[in-house]
Order: sequence, then C-alpha cells, then structure tokens
Amino acid sequence: MGLTVAEKIIKAHLVKGEMKTGKEIAIKIDQTLTQDSTGTMAYLQFEALGVDRVKTKKSIAYIDHNMLQSGPENADDHAYIQTVTKKHGIYFSKPGNGICHQVQLERIGVPGYTLLGSDSHTPTGGGIGMLAIGAGGLDVAVAMGGGEYYLTMPEIVKVNLKGKLNKGVAAKDVILEVLRQLTVKGGVNRIIEYTGEGVKYLTVPERATITNMGAELGATTSVFPSDDTTKEFLKAQGREDDFTEILPDKDAIYGKEIEVNLSELTPLVAKPHMPDKVVSVEEVKGIKVNQVAIGSCTNSSYADMMKVAKILKGKTVAENVSLVIAPGSRQVLTMLAENGALADMVAAGARILESACGPCIGMGQSPCTDAVSLRTFNRNFEGRSGTKSANVYLVSPEIAAVSAIEGVISNPCDFDLDLDVEMPKEFLINDNMIMEPAEHSSEVEVVRGPNIKPFPKNDALTDVIEKNVLIKVEDNITTDHIMPSNAKLLPYRSNIPYLSEYCLTPCDEEFPKRCKEQGGGFIVAGENYGQGSSREHAALAPVYLGIKAVMAKSFARIHRDNLVNNGILPLTFDNASDYDTIDLNDILVIDNAIESVKEGKVTVCNKTKSLTYSLSLTVTDRQKDMLMAGGLLNMIREKNNK
Amino acid sequence: MGLTVAEKIIKAHLVKGEMKTGKEIAIKIDQTLTQDSTGTMAYLQFEALGVDRVKTKKSIAYIDHNMLQSGPENADDHAYIQTVTKKHGIYFSKPGNGICHQVQLERIGVPGYTLLGSDSHTPTGGGIGMLAIGAGGLDVAVAMGGGEYYLTMPEIVKVNLKGKLNKGVAAKDVILEVLRQLTVKGGVNRIIEYTGEGVKYLTVPERATITNMGAELGATTSVFPSDDTTKEFLKAQGREDDFTEILPDKDAIYGKEIEVNLSELTPLVAKPHMPDKVVSVEEVKGIKVNQVAIGSCTNSSYADMMKVAKILKGKTVAENVSLVIAPGSRQVLTMLAENGALADMVAAGARILESACGPCIGMGQSPCTDAVSLRTFNRNFEGRSGTKSANVYLVSPEIAAVSAIEGVISNPCDFDLDLDVEMPKEFLINDNMIMEPAEHSSEVEVVRGPNIKPFPKNDALTDVIEKNVLIKVEDNITTDHIMPSNAKLLPYRSNIPYLSEYCLTPCDEEFPKRCKEQGGGFIVAGENYGQGSSREHAALAPVYLGIKAVMAKSFARIHRDNLVNNGILPLTFDNASDYDTIDLNDILVIDNAIESVKEGKVTVCNKTKSLTYSLSLTVTDRQKDMLMAGGLLNMIREKNNK
Repeated sequence: MGLTVAEKIIKAHLVKGEMKTGKEIAIKIDQTLTQDSTGTMAYLQFEALGVDRVKTKKSIAYIDHNMLQSGPENADDHAYIQTVTKKHGIYFSKPGNGICHQVQLERIGVPGYTLLGSDSHTPTGGGIGMLAIGAGGLDVAVAMGGGEYYLTMPEIVKVNLKGKLNKGVAAKDVILEVLRQLTVKGGVNRIIEYTGEGVKYLTVPERATITNMGAELGATTSVFPSDDTTKEFLKAQGREDDFTEILPDKDAIYGKEIEVNLSELTPLVAKPHMPDKVVSVEEVKGIKVNQVAIGSCTNSSYADMMKVAKILKGKTVAENVSLVIAPGSRQVLTMLAENGALADMVAAGARILESACGPCIGMGQSPCTDAVSLRTFNRNFEGRSGTKSANVYLVSPEIAAVSAIEGVISNPCDFDLDLDVEMPKEFLINDNMIMEPAEHSSEVEVVRGPNIKPFPKNDALTDVIEKNVLIKVEDNITTDHIMPSNAKLLPYRSNIPYLSEYCLTPCDEEFPKRCKEQGGGFIVAGENYGQGSSREHAALAPVYLGIKAVMAKSFARIHRDNLVNNGILPLTFDNASDYDTIDLNDILVIDNAIESVKEGKVTVCNKTKSLTYSLSLTVTDRQKDMLMAGGLLNMIREKNNK
Repeated sequence: MGLTVAEKIIKAHLVKGEMKTGKEIAIKIDQTLTQDSTGTMAYLQFEALGVDRVKTKKSIAYIDHNMLQSGPENADDHAYIQTVTKKHGIYFSKPGNGICHQVQLERIGVPGYTLLGSDSHTPTGGGIGMLAIGAGGLDVAVAMGGGEYYLTMPEIVKVNLKGKLNKGVAAKDVILEVLRQLTVKGGVNRIIEYTGEGVKYLTVPERATITNMGAELGATTSVFPSDDTTKEFLKAQGREDDFTEILPDKDAIYGKEIEVNLSELTPLVAKPHMPDKVVSVEEVKGIKVNQVAIGSCTNSSYADMMKVAKILKGKTVAENVSLVIAPGSRQVLTMLAENGALADMVAAGARILESACGPCIGMGQSPCTDAVSLRTFNRNFEGRSGTKSANVYLVSPEIAAVSAIEGVISNPCDFDLDLDVEMPKEFLINDNMIMEPAEHSSEVEVVRGPNIKPFPKNDALTDVIEKNVLIKVEDNITTDHIMPSNAKLLPYRSNIPYLSEYCLTPCDEEFPKRCKEQGGGFIVAGENYGQGSSREHAALAPVYLGIKAVMAKSFARIHRDNLVNNGILPLTFDNASDYDTIDLNDILVIDNAIESVKEGKVTVCNKTKSLTYSLSLTVTDRQKDMLMAGGLLNMIREKNNK
C-alpha cells in the first residue's frame, strides 16, 4: 500500500504505536524550536529534566515575540534563554534575526525531518516537506531531552491543487480558500497534505504561507512534498546537501480529499473576526482603511516583500492609512536594504518594524478605535490587535499594498501591476546572529533575572495522602480562574512562585495563603473543571502550592492532561452527589494511593465527616506512570538516570 | 553696543519688555512644533482658544513619542492630532517621518526665526541659528493662536570654541564637556551661545547635537551663528532661500564666558545617572556592555549614522550586546537604505527601530536587570530606560559603535577607524509624509477617539465666591499627589474627566466625589504645595472639579503658575497659623474678589468658624488679568473677540 508524504515521515520516525488513524503513536523528534514567550518556561522545564546536553539533531531558540521590551522582564528572559541554550547544546537566534518560522525555513529546516516547536505556527516547516508540529513547552522540553512525542495518529487530508495562480492571486488566497471549505475546525486531528499538478507552480515561501496557516484549520500539521522546487530553494540557501526528495506514492490513500483550482481562484479576504470568514475581495472593496500591516510568519518572505515594494515604488501611502511592514528575517531585511526595495517602501511612507512577530501577536501597532485594519497575518480574532473595536481583515500582501496606496480595500486584479519576482538564485547568507552552543556546559553560567524562578518540581506519589480541602469551587471553573493571565501578570510567566499568589484568587482570595499555611492539599470542584485556555500555568501554580489531587465532577480534557503532566491526580467522583457532602477544610485521606492509581479507582475517606467516596482516574497507562513519578519530567528523569 | 546672536533674534521679535537680563519680556513666535505626547493636550487647548486658523508662519505637529501603540489610545491620539491640525492650518508629520527635532532641522527650521515647541529638546533648532525654546503645551497653543511668549530675559553665556575636533572625538563630547563645566543647573535662565574659530569646523548636525543637549544644562536655549556652513546645509536640503546670515557683533557683550578647546578634547562619557557626571572614556574602558542604543534627537543625523555604519561594516556585534539603532528621520533612513549603509548595520547584527524617540523616552528596549547600557541619547536619569537597576552611560555614536563590536566600553581613538563622512551635497528630499493643512477648516471633521475629551474651561472670576473646603492637606504635597501619573493613567492624558477621578486621591479617596457633589470649592494646603513635576494636569483636573482657589502656606513656583494659567487663585496665608483654624467642609467666602485680585490682597471669611483671614496673591499684572478672565485661554479668547 502506498504512503502519503506525511505517512512516510511518520513511519521513518515511529517509536511506539501503530500508524492507524485515531491510535496513539509516539515519534522521534529531529529538531525543536522555541520562541521567547513560551521558551522561558520550556527551558526551565528542560533544566528540571536534568539533561546536560540536548539530544535532538538540532534545537534552536528564537527571540521574536517580546521584543518591545517595556521593562526589564523581556531582556531578562532573553538573557536567560541565551545562556541556558548555550550551556545545553542549543543554538540561539538573537533578537533581530527574525521570526522563528521564517528563519527555520531559510536556515535550519530539513525535508523529511520532524520538528517540534513551542509555537502553534510551527507547521510552516511543512513548506519544505518537514513534519512540523506545534506543541506545549513541556513537550518540547521532553523532546530536547530525547523523549518521544506522543500524538493521536491523524487522518491525512489530500488537497488536490490544480492549475496555476493568476497574477494578483496569492498563496494566501489558497489557504483562505481551504479555510473557506474546511472551516477553523476542519483540520482537527488531521494532517493537510498538498499534492497535484499545482504544487510545482508554488515556490517554497508560497507553500510555507499555506502550511503556516494550516494552524487556523486546527490541523495537527500541513505538508507539501519535497521536490525540485524545494531543492532549488535549499540550494539558493547554500543547503543543497539538506535536500531529500519526498513525494507521495502514486497509490497513497488519503482519508479525505478536497480540490482547489488555482487557475480559478480570485483574491480573497477573511473578514472580522475569524480566519474562515472568507469572502471575495470584491465583496468588501471600497471600505476605508485605517491601517495596513504586512509581515508575520505567514507573509514576510523575500518574495512577499519584493511584491509589496514593487507596488509601493514611486507611490505614496494614502493620507488615512498607517502602513507598517515587518520583513520576516534578517536575511530578507538585508536583501531589501541592499537591493533598494526597502528604500522604495520607506519612500512611499511605510513604517518599517523589526523582524519579529510584532502586531500579529498584539505587540504594538494597535490600530485606532473602530479601525479597519488589513493584515497579511494569520489570525483576526476579536481584540487580538490590542484594539477591542478594531475590524481586522486577513489579506495577501498584494491586497495589502494596493489598499495602502488607495486608502480603501482594493483588488490587485484591478490594477496593472508588475508582480514578477524571481526567486533568488542565491540568498544572502549570514548566520552571525545565530549563536553556537558552548562545547562544554561547564563553560557557561546561566543568567537568571530576578523574575526567573526555577520550575516547580513535584514529588513521586506517596502511598498515603492525608490533606485538607483547601478550596471548593463550582461548575465551569476556567483556567482563567485557576491562573489569571492579564497585563499585570503576563511578565511573570517565568515566575511561578509569584504567579501562584494569584492562583484561584478569583474564586477565593485566601486560597494561596491557605495552601502555604497547610503545606498543600486538595481542590474540590464541580463539572467541567479547567475549561478554556490550554495554559500550563494552571497546573504549575497548584504544583507549587502543594496540590496533590483535584476531585471534580468532570474535567476539561487539556487541563486534565496538564494536571497529569505535572503529577496532580485528576479524580472524578463516581457519584456526583458526593461533591455536596464535602466542605472547605475537611480532612481527606487516600490510602494505598499507588495501587489505586494503577487500577484507576481511588477510595477517598472524609475523616471530618466519616464518609467514604469512590473516584475514578481516567488516564492512559503512560499517564499512570507519570502520576506515579510525580509528573512527566520526573518520569523522564528517572528513565535517563537508569 | 554690539549684540549676540541670541540678542539679535530676540530684538527682532520683542513685543513687550526690555531686553535686560532678569526682566520679563514677550516675543513673537514664528514657528511652533508639538510632539504627540504633549501635543494632544496642546491642541485641545488650542481648540479651547476658538481660533480658526493658526497665526504663526508655520506650525507643525509630529508623531514620534507614542509609536509602540499598545492599545488604541496612541493611534486615537494620532488620528485626533492629524485631523485637528488639518482643520486649523497646521502641518502634520505622519508617524514614521521622524523625530520632531531632526525633521524640523532638515525641512522646516529657518535661521533667525523663533520656534516654540512642546518638547524640552526644541533648542535643537539653535544648530541653524534659530531661537528655539521648549515650553508647555498651553504656551504653544497660545503661540499658535497668535499670542506672544513670555519669558525672563536670560543671561547670554558665550562658549568660545577653539581648534578642531580630532578623529574619534565628536560633537557629543563638546556638549558633555560643557555639561562637565557648567553642570545640569548651569544653564538656568541662560542662553548658551557658541562662537569662536571652532564653530566653522562643526557641521550643522554636530551643532544641533550640542544645542539639543543644552536642555540638560537647564538652559532657556542654545544657539549657533548662522553662517556659510548653515547655508550649505540648507542648500543641500533644497532650502537655500531660507538662509539668512546671523553672526554675533564683534563687540557683543556676554554675561559669562567659558572656553572649550576642541583640539584638546578627548572622548567623554556621562556616567549613571546624570548627564553631567562626565568623565573620560578611559576611566570606564573595559566595562562589559549589555546594550548599545544609537539614535534619539541628539545623535541620529545622516552623518552620525554613516559613521556608525562605517564602524560596523563587515563586523559582528559582540555576543553579549543587543545593538539597537533608530535613524532620526525618514530622510536619514531612506538615504541609508539607498546607499547600502543600512544593510551594513543589519548585517553586523543591529536591530533597526523606527525613526522615533523610542528607548530614549523609555518607549521599549528596556535593558535587562543591572544592565550596562551605552546610549547616544541625552538623558540617563535613573529608571528612565524602564529598568530601575540599569546603568546608562551617555556616549557619542563612535564610542557606541566601537563598544558594540568589542562588547566592552571602548575608546574609538584606540582603533584605526575610517570616520570620514562627507556632508551630502544634496539630501534626499521627499516630504510626502508631511500632510498639508486643508484650505478651509470646514472641510475637516476632527476625529476624537473615546478617550479624547474636551479641555476643561474655567469661568471668569466672580465677585463673590462662597464654597466649602473640600480637602485639607499637609506640607510638601507634590504634583504626583495632586494628579498621579503612572502606567495605568498615562494613556488618559487627553481625558481630564477620567483623570480627575484620581485627583488628590493619594491624600483623600473621597476628594473627587466630594467636589462633584458640592459643585467645586477650595483646597487648603501647607508649605510648598505643588512641588515636583511640572505637569499641567495637576491644575487641569482641579479646574474640571470646580476648584476656585488653593489657600496654602506656600507654593512651588511652576505649579502656582499652572494654577494661574488655568484661572485658579493661588492664595498664601499671611499668617501661617490661620491654616490650623480651618477644617474640612468649612464654608469660606471671598467677597469683592475682583478688586482683591487687582490689589493682590484677599480677605477670606470662614463662615463656619466666624473667623477672617488675610491672604496674598503674588503674581504679575498679566497674571492678574488671567485670573480675572478665568485663565490664560479665556484671556486670549477675550482679546481675539475684541
């Protein structure tokens, strides 16, 4: 039976399980990447693993998120990441070197490799035929330590590309069309694989725009074949040796197939406030624009920027528009500075931002109240721009540039534009801002700003746990309740001791204090505990506060996994009504905990009320091992020490 | 009797008073400039004046301070300033066009003109022989409305420049040497005028670096002659017609004279945390550097940037250094982008920031904890960088660039550098980001974001004022008590109604509420009321809350003037002990207020206690008129309506 591109890569990396849709598998990870906003925690977790030197083929840390630096916290994080990576065999891309996904594509990624990145747009690497997956910081830490990555074997969806894009129609329109067809939920537990005659007409940066924004489908990842175009790209990057051809077998079987005819595609936009609210640009043409923002990991390649420069050359940005442009990498920026394109942009009135994520993640350039903002980015969720009332439209660089000049949303096909940009035969290669790791870890002292605190470690499960109920909460408690995240607390995400002072305080101000006084204990909760954002900190703060188990009527899936990852027992009441009999400060006892976890059935005695409850633990065998070890990191540390 | 350059310009603009040191004079203002952080309030004040069209020769609004835009407030301010200026005959420089002082020098300033700017570094214009003075927003608003500018005739200090700078020694070292000699208080009530044979060897941008940082001397302004060098500069800017020669008379008399021998000068640095803590670079050579920041209105000219690019070319920034560079204007940025210098900077590892004030005003790029940060800026006050523990050294671009490469503070004279930069015969001229005002004000609707509220207007003085004491405070109340300014409140500086909710709340949480309930009243205070920052808002919020008079044992000078400007009576107890007899909510009555203000003696009856107090009003006749009119704006409006 023939294999798809994705299956070929998975097969070559399969460590555990069977490559059958819906089954748990584990794969070996070749490369990892982190960015700074998730990276600090990932490296704290990596340090907690106790591994001296990273075990992947190549791991690299980028700084691209928190580069505005309002206060010392960001620069402190950068210094920590720079030194901790240097110590442990990880490459470090200095701030200013570019957006992680763009640089990874240009300088690091290898077709056929697996890449795990602590950023949701890691699938960009699929543009050169990598299996590139976004994951949490802990998963990336584990992979750096040599651990496999566990996932549910996804269904492979074939996107059959026919024909060739017309002038004024862009790769962005391809992924917007896929989003229109599949919606933002259409990719869940799927890999989107692009094939067909149309593939050969798409350059690597165009392919990367498409795989990048596969994240908006909710897909596990997206992937293109590695073909002659890939080879040419790598050759132009001085990396011909990294090339391997990876094509789908003729008889490969896909779980689902859709078609996009490139020849028939027209310019599209995603309207506010969701990437799948896709309509023809014709439907919104003429709307007055306040801001145009070009860049982000989706559309900041050399070719994207050159098209924009060509449109802007000799023109002036409309009076009512603020145009900001952030080239995706230092390679792109330098080439634009050398060939005069940057001068053309500036002369037209563009504001040039650093090569970084910038406004795409709400880091600056919030538009005015009620603004219409056209962005070549990947997400237009309400408020993400920093302006709650702003209307953000996702568009191609071509639409963005033309609209900036016209002052209203415009269709590039209405203009006689010169958009011919040759892919460079040789990119400008200069890796002097990628720092190599030290040869010996002892050479390096890790710099920890006052805000960077060690990762809280849990202990292995003890057989008897006798503790108090430290809080009792209602149904539908979100991770925002458990670990509030706001402008005041965000700079402290590498400081769990500080953050823990706010743990569950929206429910009970006294909770953190009570935990400390009593040396930890239990949380009792209603239905759907831990819904909302997937943030790990909602498990890390309770670990720091000594929480041993959460007993709830039911759990939200991701938070339950986060609790398990960190060695906190997520126990479900067999009789929901038992919840009613428990009060704050009741003393609960779990006897014979180790055997109970193995069996998935836990008996809890309420000493205060002289009652006995039966609770269940619904986790995989691997997760039971984790709980026994006191969390995933401990489990791996144990293995490594064997 | 011969005249100095400063005296010649003052004489040509003198409207009132006698040009004698220490006497109040009034001068006519030719040009005004605002930046965005002070501009919003200045234009709200201008609107309150009710003048349809600006009456200066040229007024211009720049956006250069709040360009990070974290939230809609900044972009809303920009939109307001763009439309209000367009309506009233004022030019508007779009964000991205550059730092106000740099652009003013390049494109707008005229030798022999007076310039009033709502920014303390307005004296930059002295580099082309302007009399350029920094002032509060209200002063600038009044000048835009055609009003004269009042100041105390300063003493003119002659700085006799001898010889010629050696290679590696910069204009920055000249002003640092002057700061070393005169200290940060040495310029108070003085104009610093540069003369001597050394002048002819200094380019216009070099002169502008020196006059710019005269602000750090506390000087009223600084000025260079307008000579052949000025003519060449203006010619290269396509503005030869704007040139007038202005040289000091041979027999000009100066109040004081100091000498700087350029030939003997060596590279200097200002150590943390004050611009006059000046030592030779040799004293601090070898200190490890974390950050180097090049730019700001002091050192961001084309020549500065070209020297930096030459030093960086082919080199790499040290691993431990984050180098950020912000070219001062779009003219400079475009020229660097066109001639390859920008590419050289980026290739060396520099992070290029927008042409704006940026890190100089703490807008981003806060260095890490305990950092050593070398900056070509003008101020190194503790905490100004956004990092309380940072050590900021003020240096020339040459020291900055060399140190960025070496990773430690370095002396450019130790290296064989090529620093020959020819002043361009023709600068790149492109004013397409300077928006012209509308021909008719009726064409323009002013855009007011939800955060921009009208300026609070006071009423003309009434003859009988019977009101309650709404707060009684102790000695040494600062403007931080009266109108707190912090990260939470800063975005609301164009919203006095909102800010007033926090007025004096550090002393009494109920004060704003009480003011509203009682329809205004009196403040009673101890010694030195209103010390600290000069912020106008500490008078504006009380106006909004209906405060009619502050009765204090004594006042800080600037705050007293701000109260007068806004029509609040600043009354001093003749007998300090009367303070003790007044309590919160006492009813006080001023009868015959108009006559009393004229006489400068006010009798206040305490109806609650049946006591009578004698208070004094120590203000000029002009200020009495202001108080009678209900503030400066009202006074001018009255005049205009006559």
